[in-house]
Amino acid sequence: MYRTLITPRFSETDALGHINNTVVPVWFEKARTPIFRCFIPTLDHRQWNLILAGFNVDYLLPTYYGEDVEIRSGIHHIGNSSLKIWHQALQGGKVVAQAEVAMVHYDYEAESSTAIGEEVRLLLAELQDPRPW
Amino acid sequence: MYRTLITPRFSETDALGHINNTVVPVWFEKARTPIFRCFIPTLDHRQWNLILAGFNVDYLLPTYYGEDVEIRSGIHHIGNSSLKIWHQALQGGKVVAQAEVAMVHYDYEAESSTAIGEEVRLLLAELQDPRPW
Amino acid sequence: MYRTLITPRFSETDALGHINNTVVPVWFEKARTPIFRCFIPTLDHRQWNLILAGFNVDYLLPTYYGEDVEIRSGIHHIGNSSLKIWHQALQGGKVVAQAEVAMVHYDYEAESSTAIGEEVRLLLAELQDPRPW
Amino acid sequence: MYRTLITPRFSETDALGHINNTVVPVWFEKARTPIFRCFIPTLDHRQWNLILAGFNVDYLLPTYYGEDVEIRSGIHHIGNSSLKIWHQALQGGKVVAQAEVAMVHYDYEAESSTAIGEEVRLLLAELQDPRPW
Repeated sequence: MYRTLITPRFSETDALGHINNTVVPVWFEKARTPIFRCFIPTLDHRQWNLILAGFNVDYLLPTYYGEDVEIRSGIHHIGNSSLKIWHQALQGGKVVAQAEVAMVHYDYEAESSTAIGEEVRLLLAELQDPRPW
Repeated sequence: MYRTLITPRFSETDALGHINNTVVPVWFEKARTPIFRCFIPTLDHRQWNLILAGFNVDYLLPTYYGEDVEIRSGIHHIGNSSLKIWHQALQGGKVVAQAEVAMVHYDYEAESSTAIGEEVRLLLAELQDPRPW
Repeated sequence: MYRTLITPRFSETDALGHINNTVVPVWFEKARTPIFRCFIPTLDHRQWNLILAGFNVDYLLPTYYGEDVEIRSGIHHIGNSSLKIWHQALQGGKVVAQAEVAMVHYDYEAESSTAIGEEVRLLLAELQDPRPW
Repeated sequence: MYRTLITPRFSETDALGHINNTVVPVWFEKARTPIFRCFIPTLDHRQWNLILAGFNVDYLLPTYYGEDVEIRSGIHHIGNSSLKIWHQALQGGKVVAQAEVAMVHYDYEAESSTAIGEEVRLLLAELQDPRPW
């Protein structure tokens, strides 16, 4: 499990006075940066080899502007060409949202999924952690 | 089933040359406007009585700038205080993404879910449609 | 002068109950699509030849969710390699925001500005209109 | 002058492979948090007393994903009820964008601007710095 700190932006609130729900997947994408680095160490988009297959997200409590949010993330499954990632967002010590994300190692030229190599697996192993729910 | 037309914005693309995945939930939220109107006819945020419980989304094909996207939406389950909604995004005649969304009729002052009344149910019934997948 | 209709999204509001100020430049970028088409008829990003030099924007009145916004746009100056564009956003018949935008015809490979050709000038001329303020 | 560190998000890129221009005002708004705190120490949106009058922004160089951005900010003018703020975004030691922002101390109930008090002026004075261009 690793942590990412997010300071909510005023532009991320909505008229209900909370963080808008569509912002949470943006934060979770940002929290996947260490996973992106396992596959693309330079983060150069011209070498990108990942694609998002889908995710599910649950909103447990409202999230507010004015207090930092801690994102906890881990990889809970590494398949042949895919991986499953979990995220939890905490504010004030409480889980406010959580998600499970499916990503695929992808060859954009061949337009097909491709096996994850041994070197990348070693890096991913350091981020492995069972899903906490 | 009802349709919502979206013209992708250049700012919604990302460095891979597609629409960024975090944009699709934004489009789907926009496509829920007719459902919001069943609960809050004026769309006045001070009378808002809905909360998003969660959603899952699958990305089937890349979505591009420069061609309109049709969102098809329907309500496939109406419970005592909650409802389940499906969305499909189509571009060039193909389904590019789909989602299932859980919303709750909510009293923000009492901070609890609250039963959906008969008048609202009559309006929701017009948007009912089985999930197409 | 040409018009673009925008339906504000709930996710574009902020905790003050208005549309967040950072959204207005996004709407104005969307309203430049007819200008983009003069330079890149297919809107294919691989053929993009425009760069934004800068803009200034004034916020005159709050903008609300629940009512459409009309964007009026025009080109008020066409230089050798650059153009100046104005935008006005109106809601309920009143101007809520306005901006002046400088764009440059740009060769991304050569990394330099490049003269606007005659064919493009003919297309741009149809969108010319003096700035209304 | 004070500094704010921004780590660009993948969702903030666009199809040209750079950070989309509409993102920069979002970063600059985030960089105004210390100024917001002078007026609203809790950052509670129900006590908000600031309104954005407008800004101008210049884009000098493309900004990329994968490298942090430093925002430098200062207040270069404090009027009776308004203030002028400058921002510079630097990446790799070079200024990539800069902006000048006009904000107004505002009473949302009375719907009018209101004089900035002495206590707030003392706090603002610590963030004063001449515009560097």
